[in-house]
Amino acid sequence: MPRKQPVAIVFDTFGTVVDWRGSLIAELTAFGAQRGIGADWAGLVDAWRAAYQPSMNRVRTGEVPWTRLDDLHRASLDRLIEEFGVAGLSEADRQHINRGWHRLNPWPDSVPGLTRLKRRFIIGPLSNGNVSLLTNMAKHAGLPWDMVFGSDLFGHYKPDPETYLGVCRLLDLAPDQVMMAAAHNGDLAAARQCGLLTAFFPRPTEYGPHQSRDFKADADWDVVASDIEEMAGLLGA
Amino acid sequence: MPRKQPVAIVFDTFGTVVDWRGSLIAELTAFGAQRGIGADWAGLVDAWRAAYQPSMNRVRTGEVPWTRLDDLHRASLDRLIEEFGVAGLSEADRQHINRGWHRLNPWPDSVPGLTRLKRRFIIGPLSNGNVSLLTNMAKHAGLPWDMVFGSDLFGHYKPDPETYLGVCRLLDLAPDQVMMAAAHNGDLAAARQCGLLTAFFPRPTEYGPHQSRDFKADADWDVVASDIEEMAGLLGA
Repeated sequence: MPRKQPVAIVFDTFGTVVDWRGSLIAELTAFGAQRGIGADWAGLVDAWRAAYQPSMNRVRTGEVPWTRLDDLHRASLDRLIEEFGVAGLSEADRQHINRGWHRLNPWPDSVPGLTRLKRRFIIGPLSNGNVSLLTNMAKHAGLPWDMVFGSDLFGHYKPDPETYLGVCRLLDLAPDQVMMAAAHNGDLAAARQCGLLTAFFPRPTEYGPHQSRDFKADADWDVVASDIEEMAGLLGA
Repeated sequence: MPRKQPVAIVFDTFGTVVDWRGSLIAELTAFGAQRGIGADWAGLVDAWRAAYQPSMNRVRTGEVPWTRLDDLHRASLDRLIEEFGVAGLSEADRQHINRGWHRLNPWPDSVPGLTRLKRRFIIGPLSNGNVSLLTNMAKHAGLPWDMVFGSDLFGHYKPDPETYLGVCRLLDLAPDQVMMAAAHNGDLAAARQCGLLTAFFPRPTEYGPHQSRDFKADADWDVVASDIEEMAGLLGA
């Protein structure tokens, strides 16, 4: 068990709790087959995710005003539909595809691990997703959050400190009473910079064949586990 | 079943979901007995709640800047401890007593009714409490919220429209896709003014012998029930 126990644990979601790549490729492939729309759906999903950080960077740097992730996703999607030459999509289709980010499936250990942790700790997502995306995702995937920390509560995207410290403010907790859990070392480094406790577990298949990092803990995070169930055990839950 | 079904249902909490008066009187009476501190604890609780609306009004009117309910409660408590002549309370005691609002007990139908509603709808509190108060209350009382809408997310107290419309914005829903549920007709009137659906059930013992209103629905709210379990049935949950 780590030296210091948290009161609350917040989780990165995309990749850490849910399998965005596997979920979106499966959903879009089925959608394309059903509608008779052929496309490189896996390539489109990977390109969509590749647009994620650059699109948020425009917000982080102030180049554009605060924009919800749903709207950043939609702008990227519209561009990629052209680039990948996908034909025959109505406005309703585009809205449906964009909401695919609200219907991501959990990794096998996510729901049982979170259910155990919820018995001892306040748990919530701390994600770059907006509240509606994360709330719908939780209903879809059965994630038993106590509270949903969407980036729109703060008007900032991680790793801006306003996000990590915003959780502490809303829960009325000191930074070292809150633990950030993520499969991404960079997220944890930013959280630790703000004084939060940290927990890492790898998701080595998150990016499929394109994964290039985060196979292991890059620093002495407070908890290092193989998945959320093992993390729960290490925290006595 | 009402003409229009909501996607999300938000609940007033103090009085509607939890029995603040019974909970606080029981807790403070036990605290006083254990510590040998005699006081008119029931009178103090009633006076504390009587200070609730006036203290929020100073925020609503802009007389004071945004102040969390925990801090309004604490200022009122400090004044009432003097007025009621309660002696021997340390700073830690005052903090503990003030956190009594985080430890309120649910009415008997609240947890079973909310559990049923959660299967079909997004559910959350929309309360004048702050997020930390409501999150701790949910852990204490076992309230199965999907998301916690504290007044500090909006920097406004009900019945300011920023609260009702803030829920719609964060959930990305139209006002008529969100239902406000409360045991207080005034809360529902303000929600309807913003376009939300409405559900009423009475809590005739909320104020004990001092209850003077809200024994019944004062208008044609979309759902009128006897409690949250009956409300769940009327909504097909």
